[in-house]
Amino acid sequence: MSFNHFDDEGRAHMVDVTGKEPTVRQATATATVKLGRKLLTEVLDRNLTKGDVLGVARLAGINAVKRTSELIPLAHPLAIGQAAIDFKADEAEGTIQVICSAKALEKTGVEMEAMTGATVAALTIYDMCKGRDKSISIDQVRLLFKSGGKSGVFQAEGEVSK
Amino acid sequence: MSFNHFDDEGRAHMVDVTGKEPTVRQATATATVKLGRKLLTEVLDRNLTKGDVLGVARLAGINAVKRTSELIPLAHPLAIGQAAIDFKADEAEGTIQVICSAKALEKTGVEMEAMTGATVAALTIYDMCKGRDKSISIDQVRLLFKSGGKSGVFQAEGEVSK
Amino acid sequence: MSFNHFDDEGRAHMVDVTGKEPTVRQATATATVKLGRKLLTEVLDRNLTKGDVLGVARLAGINAVKRTSELIPLAHPLAIGQAAIDFKADEAEGTIQVICSAKALEKTGVEMEAMTGATVAALTIYDMCKGRDKSISIDQVRLLFKSGGKSGVFQAEGEVSK
Amino acid sequence: MSFNHFDDEGRAHMVDVTGKEPTVRQATATATVKLGRKLLTEVLDRNLTKGDVLGVARLAGINAVKRTSELIPLAHPLAIGQAAIDFKADEAEGTIQVICSAKALEKTGVEMEAMTGATVAALTIYDMCKGRDKSISIDQVRLLFKSGGKSGVFQAEGEVSK
Amino acid sequence: MSFNHFDDEGRAHMVDVTGKEPTVRQATATATVKLGRKLLTEVLDRNLTKGDVLGVARLAGINAVKRTSELIPLAHPLAIGQAAIDFKADEAEGTIQVICSAKALEKTGVEMEAMTGATVAALTIYDMCKGRDKSISIDQVRLLFKSGGKSGVFQAEGEVSK
Amino acid sequence: MSFNHFDDEGRAHMVDVTGKEPTVRQATATATVKLGRKLLTEVLDRNLTKGDVLGVARLAGINAVKRTSELIPLAHPLAIGQAAIDFKADEAEGTIQVICSAKALEKTGVEMEAMTGATVAALTIYDMCKGRDKSISIDQVRLLFKSGGKSGVFQAEGEVSK
Repeated sequence: MSFNHFDDEGRAHMVDVTGKEPTVRQATATATVKLGRKLLTEVLDRNLTKGDVLGVARLAGINAVKRTSELIPLAHPLAIGQAAIDFKADEAEGTIQVICSAKALEKTGVEMEAMTGATVAALTIYDMCKGRDKSISIDQVRLLFKSGGKSGVFQAEGEVSK
Repeated sequence: MSFNHFDDEGRAHMVDVTGKEPTVRQATATATVKLGRKLLTEVLDRNLTKGDVLGVARLAGINAVKRTSELIPLAHPLAIGQAAIDFKADEAEGTIQVICSAKALEKTGVEMEAMTGATVAALTIYDMCKGRDKSISIDQVRLLFKSGGKSGVFQAEGEVSK
Repeated sequence: MSFNHFDDEGRAHMVDVTGKEPTVRQATATATVKLGRKLLTEVLDRNLTKGDVLGVARLAGINAVKRTSELIPLAHPLAIGQAAIDFKADEAEGTIQVICSAKALEKTGVEMEAMTGATVAALTIYDMCKGRDKSISIDQVRLLFKSGGKSGVFQAEGEVSK
Repeated sequence: MSFNHFDDEGRAHMVDVTGKEPTVRQATATATVKLGRKLLTEVLDRNLTKGDVLGVARLAGINAVKRTSELIPLAHPLAIGQAAIDFKADEAEGTIQVICSAKALEKTGVEMEAMTGATVAALTIYDMCKGRDKSISIDQVRLLFKSGGKSGVFQAEGEVSK
Repeated sequence: MSFNHFDDEGRAHMVDVTGKEPTVRQATATATVKLGRKLLTEVLDRNLTKGDVLGVARLAGINAVKRTSELIPLAHPLAIGQAAIDFKADEAEGTIQVICSAKALEKTGVEMEAMTGATVAALTIYDMCKGRDKSISIDQVRLLFKSGGKSGVFQAEGEVSK
Repeated sequence: MSFNHFDDEGRAHMVDVTGKEPTVRQATATATVKLGRKLLTEVLDRNLTKGDVLGVARLAGINAVKRTSELIPLAHPLAIGQAAIDFKADEAEGTIQVICSAKALEKTGVEMEAMTGATVAALTIYDMCKGRDKSISIDQVRLLFKSGGKSGVFQAEGEVSK
């Protein structure tokens, strides 16, 4: 497969998927927010008592999954059938890993939906913590898993499960 | 400053900026797309001849700057006065660094606009290259610079200019 | 059925409907705007001569049906196949009842689409009349009818037809 | 004041506010969700342990405040400076009252923003509870308070404070 | 003035207006829908009795004025202060002329808002009439008038008033 | 076929397509931007060296194809399967013809998507050139071709191919 968002003469287009058979498409993507240990502890403590940072970020990510085709210029609008955001805190590293999964019975994959959902959830964590520390970064935004469609299953190296 | 997206009882809210005086707000943020050397060369070559990957990503980023308040739940809608996306390719590293700047005469900062613009431009590069390599990652999403408002200037460590 | 917008650990998610068979889904919802007799008469008279309050509200409701998944965080984007708004004026009570119907061949129901359409049409009537009376209220927003899907037909008590 | 969303010939228009001086505008609106006692207890219990129904509804309401001008056809786009959603449960009545406040330094009022935010938060509660009971209704959607602008302060009858 | 949507190196950007003083900006644009005499008569007759084609088109145009910055990639989001759509039927020619005016106290002009509003209203007329005649065309989409800002007043040739 | 966006009593509605069988729908529409010879030459020269006017317009058109149902009040949301924008410059006439094609496996046609895409791409060219000449006009916005659905193939007079 090549740069298929461009036609033979190099013009950007939304590639024709009309004739493709819909299959179940799944994708999982991740983004890691580097908060530092102290701030991570505060975020996790707040979630137990007040000011649910991760709850807000979760909804932002799910909304972004639904709106991916408004953000990524050549992405098709898809009938998203499932979307979820999960978080894994690593207290030793001071990081929160965002994991976004998306699923649809569709003619094209949901990788961009999962990538966009993970990223927007991570940006929302940044937004809520930036009053404390502006040097927070987001790293390792990448696809962990995809299945469905002609190109089949992709599993990121070093990742055990979807 | 603390977790100001939550009130004293921990409820998420859009914080009151009504009484604040507008000042010129600027922010620059970055995201780095790790394409690998071979794919980077192809992307750069295409831009000269056909299939302008970076031109598409630039417009995606500018659009995202304008739509930040639809994506980040507690962000204020802002009258964005300027937005631009620039790219720096590092052929030795096989990376493209996205640099997004935003500016507004506003009551609150444009950091999230710059962060969101940089990220969506990077996701768009990913989208156009994922047919070639699904293991591309986006890293070092972070604020480089901000100015304006009570908290004044922020300059990321190790960064020389805005 | 339970609180199915949350998973077993209480996390909000967009529930997986990928494997469900699409069936024809219909829903009708209502909202009642309490204008008072005098203002109702004016609204109805205007519609005959100039300033079509109900025509504007109708289009607002249809637009809202289409945009429900942007407003209701865990709602799926649906391929809406039909949407309509009707009005019943009760001159003795001084009320306008908004009735919104929606229909789709889909994997999940269109109740939220009908509810959102009825409500936004009612809010639009409020908007156009608030210059006359700010104490107008909207009441009895509820589902009248739904059909399709595993849970079958729902008919609100005391309602004769869909 | 009259039906000012229509011109002298009865044509709908977005009325000219260009020449008006911005003043601080505030509005508070409410909507009451009738869940019944049993379901209300479950919703409140969940919020303590898992599945934060009200947290989701709060964000939906704040999002709707920001997007009011996309929903209400003749509403002006406003630079919302503050938005918040609060909830009051009445366990005896089995109801949750949604209270939405909005604020802006603007040329026109934020009543529709408060009304729309309250309503969409209420619809979101409905969405999350409809698997349990489809006969839930939303009532008493109305303005509680507004201030700012030529028409001054409005206080709903029987309401003590904003 | 030149191609100011591009910087010195030819990169598309949203040009910086942050330092500009807001002034009252007005623009009027037009689009002409060529229905043919017979269809025009039907459209005008319907508007008197049932099926208000022009009322629907008017609201579509006003909505488009508000959403211009989502459609035109390098347009600034503007605080639109007024928007209106008018229609002039020419029964001899079988045409409807759409006239869209927009106004804002802003740092940049509202020409694109007026152009977009006129065009979307015209497209909506097309949509409602295409079941009758698919060969309808839209012509003479152009700016009639603008005022405000450094470049001052523009009046289209052969046009008498704004 | 008649004014099918209105029911028997003349009320605007989104017509019921739920029971229709999806077929492959295609449409091609056009819009012509009259730049004048001198400005056209500059636009074409820029595209080779810097400031890619047509690249920006192309993406604006594709975005508009995806968002048609948000702009045209009674249009159904469609699962667009393909979208492309092409340009034909006529240096003798000083015009650029925008050609937009759209395709979907759907229950209703994609004519409005093609018309809206062509128009928004044309408006974007106008936006980028208006600093040079405000009297640019857009003409001959019309459908060139459609296929699929009960009404079958439409071919504009004098047009040879889709």
